[in-house]
Amino acid sequence: MARPVTLFTGQWADLDFETLCHKVSLFGYDGVEIACWGNHFEVNQATDLYCVEKLEILERYHLQTFAISTHLVGQAVCDNIDIRHKSILPPHVWGDGDPEGVRQRAAEELKQTARAAKKLGVTVVNGFTGSSIWHLVYSFPPVTKEMIDEGYADFARRWKPILDEFQAQGIKFALEVHPTEIAFDIASAERALKALDYHPAFGFNYDPSHFGYQGVDYIEFLYRFADRIFHVHIKDVAWSEAPKEVGVFGGHIEFGDHRRYWDFRSPGRGNIDFEEIIRALNRINYQGPLSVEWEDGGMDREHGAMEACDFVHDLDFKPSTIAFDSAFEK
Amino acid sequence: MARPVTLFTGQWADLDFETLCHKVSLFGYDGVEIACWGNHFEVNQATDLYCVEKLEILERYHLQTFAISTHLVGQAVCDNIDIRHKSILPPHVWGDGDPEGVRQRAAEELKQTARAAKKLGVTVVNGFTGSSIWHLVYSFPPVTKEMIDEGYADFARRWKPILDEFQAQGIKFALEVHPTEIAFDIASAERALKALDYHPAFGFNYDPSHFGYQGVDYIEFLYRFADRIFHVHIKDVAWSEAPKEVGVFGGHIEFGDHRRYWDFRSPGRGNIDFEEIIRALNRINYQGPLSVEWEDGGMDREHGAMEACDFVHDLDFKPSTIAFDSAFEK
Amino acid sequence: MARPVTLFTGQWADLDFETLCHKVSLFGYDGVEIACWGNHFEVNQATDLYCVEKLEILERYHLQTFAISTHLVGQAVCDNIDIRHKSILPPHVWGDGDPEGVRQRAAEELKQTARAAKKLGVTVVNGFTGSSIWHLVYSFPPVTKEMIDEGYADFARRWKPILDEFQAQGIKFALEVHPTEIAFDIASAERALKALDYHPAFGFNYDPSHFGYQGVDYIEFLYRFADRIFHVHIKDVAWSEAPKEVGVFGGHIEFGDHRRYWDFRSPGRGNIDFEEIIRALNRINYQGPLSVEWEDGGMDREHGAMEACDFVHDLDFKPSTIAFDSAFEK
Amino acid sequence: MARPVTLFTGQWADLDFETLCHKVSLFGYDGVEIACWGNHFEVNQATDLYCVEKLEILERYHLQTFAISTHLVGQAVCDNIDIRHKSILPPHVWGDGDPEGVRQRAAEELKQTARAAKKLGVTVVNGFTGSSIWHLVYSFPPVTKEMIDEGYADFARRWKPILDEFQAQGIKFALEVHPTEIAFDIASAERALKALDYHPAFGFNYDPSHFGYQGVDYIEFLYRFADRIFHVHIKDVAWSEAPKEVGVFGGHIEFGDHRRYWDFRSPGRGNIDFEEIIRALNRINYQGPLSVEWEDGGMDREHGAMEACDFVHDLDFKPSTIAFDSAFEK
Amino acid sequence: MARPVTLFTGQWADLDFETLCHKVSLFGYDGVEIACWGNHFEVNQATDLYCVEKLEILERYHLQTFAISTHLVGQAVCDNIDIRHKSILPPHVWGDGDPEGVRQRAAEELKQTARAAKKLGVTVVNGFTGSSIWHLVYSFPPVTKEMIDEGYADFARRWKPILDEFQAQGIKFALEVHPTEIAFDIASAERALKALDYHPAFGFNYDPSHFGYQGVDYIEFLYRFADRIFHVHIKDVAWSEAPKEVGVFGGHIEFGDHRRYWDFRSPGRGNIDFEEIIRALNRINYQGPLSVEWEDGGMDREHGAMEACDFVHDLDFKPSTIAFDSAFEK
Amino acid sequence: MARPVTLFTGQWADLDFETLCHKVSLFGYDGVEIACWGNHFEVNQATDLYCVEKLEILERYHLQTFAISTHLVGQAVCDNIDIRHKSILPPHVWGDGDPEGVRQRAAEELKQTARAAKKLGVTVVNGFTGSSIWHLVYSFPPVTKEMIDEGYADFARRWKPILDEFQAQGIKFALEVHPTEIAFDIASAERALKALDYHPAFGFNYDPSHFGYQGVDYIEFLYRFADRIFHVHIKDVAWSEAPKEVGVFGGHIEFGDHRRYWDFRSPGRGNIDFEEIIRALNRINYQGPLSVEWEDGGMDREHGAMEACDFVHDLDFKPSTIAFDSAFEK
Repeated sequence: MARPVTLFTGQWADLDFETLCHKVSLFGYDGVEIACWGNHFEVNQATDLYCVEKLEILERYHLQTFAISTHLVGQAVCDNIDIRHKSILPPHVWGDGDPEGVRQRAAEELKQTARAAKKLGVTVVNGFTGSSIWHLVYSFPPVTKEMIDEGYADFARRWKPILDEFQAQGIKFALEVHPTEIAFDIASAERALKALDYHPAFGFNYDPSHFGYQGVDYIEFLYRFADRIFHVHIKDVAWSEAPKEVGVFGGHIEFGDHRRYWDFRSPGRGNIDFEEIIRALNRINYQGPLSVEWEDGGMDREHGAMEACDFVHDLDFKPSTIAFDSAFEK
Repeated sequence: MARPVTLFTGQWADLDFETLCHKVSLFGYDGVEIACWGNHFEVNQATDLYCVEKLEILERYHLQTFAISTHLVGQAVCDNIDIRHKSILPPHVWGDGDPEGVRQRAAEELKQTARAAKKLGVTVVNGFTGSSIWHLVYSFPPVTKEMIDEGYADFARRWKPILDEFQAQGIKFALEVHPTEIAFDIASAERALKALDYHPAFGFNYDPSHFGYQGVDYIEFLYRFADRIFHVHIKDVAWSEAPKEVGVFGGHIEFGDHRRYWDFRSPGRGNIDFEEIIRALNRINYQGPLSVEWEDGGMDREHGAMEACDFVHDLDFKPSTIAFDSAFEK
Repeated sequence: MARPVTLFTGQWADLDFETLCHKVSLFGYDGVEIACWGNHFEVNQATDLYCVEKLEILERYHLQTFAISTHLVGQAVCDNIDIRHKSILPPHVWGDGDPEGVRQRAAEELKQTARAAKKLGVTVVNGFTGSSIWHLVYSFPPVTKEMIDEGYADFARRWKPILDEFQAQGIKFALEVHPTEIAFDIASAERALKALDYHPAFGFNYDPSHFGYQGVDYIEFLYRFADRIFHVHIKDVAWSEAPKEVGVFGGHIEFGDHRRYWDFRSPGRGNIDFEEIIRALNRINYQGPLSVEWEDGGMDREHGAMEACDFVHDLDFKPSTIAFDSAFEK
Repeated sequence: MARPVTLFTGQWADLDFETLCHKVSLFGYDGVEIACWGNHFEVNQATDLYCVEKLEILERYHLQTFAISTHLVGQAVCDNIDIRHKSILPPHVWGDGDPEGVRQRAAEELKQTARAAKKLGVTVVNGFTGSSIWHLVYSFPPVTKEMIDEGYADFARRWKPILDEFQAQGIKFALEVHPTEIAFDIASAERALKALDYHPAFGFNYDPSHFGYQGVDYIEFLYRFADRIFHVHIKDVAWSEAPKEVGVFGGHIEFGDHRRYWDFRSPGRGNIDFEEIIRALNRINYQGPLSVEWEDGGMDREHGAMEACDFVHDLDFKPSTIAFDSAFEK
Repeated sequence: MARPVTLFTGQWADLDFETLCHKVSLFGYDGVEIACWGNHFEVNQATDLYCVEKLEILERYHLQTFAISTHLVGQAVCDNIDIRHKSILPPHVWGDGDPEGVRQRAAEELKQTARAAKKLGVTVVNGFTGSSIWHLVYSFPPVTKEMIDEGYADFARRWKPILDEFQAQGIKFALEVHPTEIAFDIASAERALKALDYHPAFGFNYDPSHFGYQGVDYIEFLYRFADRIFHVHIKDVAWSEAPKEVGVFGGHIEFGDHRRYWDFRSPGRGNIDFEEIIRALNRINYQGPLSVEWEDGGMDREHGAMEACDFVHDLDFKPSTIAFDSAFEK
Repeated sequence: MARPVTLFTGQWADLDFETLCHKVSLFGYDGVEIACWGNHFEVNQATDLYCVEKLEILERYHLQTFAISTHLVGQAVCDNIDIRHKSILPPHVWGDGDPEGVRQRAAEELKQTARAAKKLGVTVVNGFTGSSIWHLVYSFPPVTKEMIDEGYADFARRWKPILDEFQAQGIKFALEVHPTEIAFDIASAERALKALDYHPAFGFNYDPSHFGYQGVDYIEFLYRFADRIFHVHIKDVAWSEAPKEVGVFGGHIEFGDHRRYWDFRSPGRGNIDFEEIIRALNRINYQGPLSVEWEDGGMDREHGAMEACDFVHDLDFKPSTIAFDSAFEK
């Protein structure tokens, strides 16, 4: 009730933007969180006219938008670039694939994204940051304190100028805290904030699905970073009570394999306690959208997007405005 | 009772071998699993005489030995070499640090280790293999099937010649299945075996502490690979029932920090169900040593080694040789 | 299906009775359990005409009623009266606030409530009893057996005359077993019954939300007191699996604070197992209403009352009238 | 969506077939699994005309059928016959009740059932097999290996000729793995298959309600016997987290008694994890019906059949046809 | 400390009585519970002299005795006799194996056992009763109320005369409540007592290992039958948290197989909560022995008997004789 | 090892001090925490000579002391005094029993206790504070914020002068956080500290047994108040996994009754996770004694005190002084 329910378009980039908007409207959503890939939102073509046309499409299907998302290009800003990145980057960012060149072009594209967001009229850009130290995730051979320090220093060097441009445009950048990024749990999120000297344009796109299976306290995350929750993903994940053949690290096998300890799920079909999340969001006074990032390797996508929309509408509720026992007192 | 209890010397390499043997004997152990680092066992100096002297020291303290361990050099065989490896390798393996050169010298050192093991009179070498694909542990940017395939192919190319030499010497190589290695759960262990065409010299140094916190079924591991369990580590790990600030991936923070979801523990003080392990070892007829790899960042090392020795002696038991209800039948 | 679903008006006393009835009807309820405060049901004005007018309002909105509730005045019968009671009592019961005077006036009001209930045509009055010994809840300084005995004796002395009047009027009094009352779990409920020599007019308004977080077996309560379950509240409560900063005793902080171990919840959003409750109610052949006492400090009250009504309608079901395997036998 | 939802008529044999079909259609089902008792499907009267008339009734109510079920006669094939069987068998099979005669007539009736199924146009017959060794379920006095071997040999002797006739008719026999049958868990199901030399006409009518309360891994069952899952029952069962007065063996008391550790339940009201079942059925590519066997001793049958139909329609979903991360790659 | 710890000799009948006594003494036990099979105690040879010689052996090894046990012959009193019984009965009871003859001879042997117990100077005979209805453990084909009634009636007819003789001799008969017996949980134990009109010579040999894996509340058993707990077995059992291939019914496979859901264990190595048992025994004022029935299919018998003796000595403790807070009051 | 193990004498006040010291020494303890009641330590007689005599007794039995404890008199400082207090107070504090007089005399006795502690040579006084608001533990009739505020203000008014005297004497006061006191969980402990403006002489005698059953995070307590942990009690408590007849509030029944949800236990026989406590104490660098407060209503006191001493000696360990992976690096 209280909050608009949007669908993140990132998993639907194979569909034309207008085709997708028509579907999203029929599914029952109030709006979309627009991916900066496919033809959904092309940052380097985002003229004023381009943005007006996008907004007209949204209006045609009675959809709102609150955020655009740049996970793919963002990933390249800090990453150790390899051949995998070619498949997720636009050609003008990949260029000749020279790692440092890719990273710098990605950083420029991010600044451009802030400017494009302003043109479109949204105030939040969600995305990834990449990380030069994710591959050091288990400390063997022993990782030194200095190697980790350098990873956060590199992150700060590359992102502070980007965030300054965000600040100049009046846009927030919301990192989706996630494995493979500079922050993937509470401690690393705190450290990322500190590395940036708590830059006012930097906060989080909260997504509990990346925390639950890791054993990270995703409710505490909301209270800890209450004033940095700029956007919220509704995405579910299932993990097993019993041990399995493949554990958290994923066994070099693919999502969807039943030997896995964990896998993403259509909202409401996994282990995430969304009830507690809504109550925490109410307590910290989050008033933005609840954005479904729909991903479930075992379910038909359209079936899932529909049931997810219903699930979130049933889940959310307006907070109370009265104190209870007072009613006893007339 | 049934099985000798040994202490792995790897965490005690700061002590001279004989000094350590004296302590180990006083702690109550039946023997040692000797690390190929420090001055415990130097592969490149392992002449017949050198081995005789080591055996005399063992005899002096009434200690047996069943295996030597080459985790550090083994790690370099498949790894993407970087500066971290310099600190764990002997100078003659590190050389100029050129990655491919390091890998090849490490491979040669492994063959030498098999020959040295034979001289010392043990039949098992425990160790790591390294992995060229560990850094791809979470699949983003999307990892292709071909990239993983190539990781296992690389592993097979580098290890088959080493294992042939092991086979020629009558020695088994026992991989400690572990994050950062080519195998770290059941599925990846199966795949490693398959990549090697089930080479008869290749099996496992079973260590449950690397499985439990991941959500991997460490009891099933024993039944699945019953004839490949060449050696057993007794090492414990604690993981939390409640979510924490830092999850399985470790948050780029150090062991011992109380915000962690998991940490190693002195045997009996963690979550591993050793009762079920002993019963499974009895069922698969494992007759080798139970080797304590003692690591607990919160406890005094000598205190711990002593209590661990008592713990394992109390834990182990002789299997039954009678069927029960038959006693009713006189 | 089987049972009418009513809404307890106690938490809505800030609304005029007819205004509330209109809402309740729109929410989908079958009826109301009427609080004896606000202008919902004023015992000291309950003439025949007054009652007829109330019934006409109910009829206007197609609502039934089965019980009235006198928690506030009931509380004063046995309590150690202090300033808190002033805010919950009508002026003619509070009077000059002298404790014994208040208790005696409250007792008279209770008898009057039985007579008023009869006029209104209901057969059950729900309420509290108060307790002179609740403050002794933790036994330090050591509480003697005699002090507790005296608490139950006081309860019996004060309530037997009231219950005799109930019996004379053909009305049941249903204590909502609850902390701060003479009975708050199974043992104290048994003792309360015994203290009253099992007075036929005395039984319980079953409300599981006061048992679950305490660790009291709320299903067993139904079987133990099967013939004394005179009324049923549907009210939910959540309690934490993990320990919290504030435990069961409530830390002198307010409801709604996220540091609490437990809090009331809209039905279906807490930990109470209503499925087992319905099955137990079927087995003991309870045929009265299921009355929603809606209290959730984090949710908008009207939103909650609506979803609670749907929840109870989905939950309840008609018991079976056939034995199963017999269908195999034609 | 993907799969038709049917109702098994076995628990409704007190109703005339057409009367039942009318109800089933109103409940919302897509079809029926027809019991070979009552007047639902009488094997010994199943002429071509009889079958045409049945199909016309189904068509009248827009119902499909995929399987008929012969639990009662099937039970008699291997059982130690006693007076209980008289009540579940048609007179022409019971005859004079001489055990071996009953068993042989039951076997003939089974062959006849295969032929009748073919006439009706279904390809699966569900049923029980009976067992001559079920009564040896706890090994005291000590049961010898030979006694068990003989039980499976008897099963094979009696069932192979029946299954050959099924094979000849192009019909599958699907055993509902169940206590009292030759197979009641994974190990005994494997042994039954082996005893039959993996006869191609033999497989399983999967019903999780008989596994969960036993402590049998009902998800593993699906993966283990992926190509032998010929039919699926949706039936739920509840078991207690806390110990009870009566355990798994049932205490010689009746279903529905609240002292029991377990009892059958309307789907969705017990402990079975149907979410995991649907995902496993998708992975093994099961494309048959989901057939509700409705049994809940505490709920009105018609109320239950309706809610069960809704439950299964909400539960089932089409599997995915796209790989996820590929959407990132355009 | 408070209670003597004895070893039940039933699982050691392959050893000569004196040989066993010597061992038992060395293991650290205070006494033995003597099985009426092997040459431990032969009821039909139990003259005064025979008994004196037995007592002299006990005295030689400083062992006490409190009970003899007749599980095997007791089993035959109510059972449906088949070939399995031949292996557990002495020839003079088995005779020609005619079922009714066997049952009657077993009943006579039981009376003789009471007289022999008196000669030996013990006051309790532990044992089984058998059951004519155990094979009806799962109700399919449907079991009628009359069939169960007849099972208990048969039990009463056969056992009342036996118990009268026990009463005459001043001996108690203690049924070990157990699958395959007339009582195997709380409800069936209540029914057995009722069938016997609460015969004063009839009670229970409490053994928690037969309850835990069934889901039966073994602590409640002690409070329910507080005055009928005549003897106590310390025997442990493990059951799985995760579902298995073989469930509670045992899959027709043997003890010791790792696919099982449950198996017996050396005391302290299973799931039984002996701490709560000791506290309950203290509360009901049980003052008899704690008798280890040692059975663990995976452990060497002598190793186990020794560790079990230590386990029970560590476990048991004297109850308190002071009320706590009174110490504050001087 | 690292820390001395002491026994709190409060539960042994029925014994003469020297008699008790002799026993404590034989039980194996390193020292005593001396209660200020019985003849153990009489504050109003504590001259220099008196203290010397006490220290001589300790020396005679090789016992150390680190703290004295004044729970009983401390309780009277803030409590609403009633007849229960007479039984726990010395006559000169109780006097005529006028509540305000008792509170003031108790406050003076506390100051005297600080001076006596200094004479005895200890630096910590453990105790209770009492509370004027404990009886408001459940908020009905509704408790106002002002009533709670006044409770803490009263506490501060009464305790600040006492703590100033403690500070002047160089003594710490350690409140045992406990139901019935001004602080009984984390939130109320924080509030108590704040009410005192974080007086440097005020901290805590940590006792996990009062937190666990409430659902309070007793590990978090240590990290939250790391620099205020002045003393540690080792006391255990058991609470039930299953709901019971009597919940946390205690049902007005006595300790030791098996219907209770929770009860105190001899250390190691309850639910407290002492392993985590020791690790947390190591991390916060607590170096004081581990003091057994032995209370277990079901166990013989001397038996318990002995096993508790062994339990704590086995439990505690020296922290590590080396970082682990460094051993790999030579």
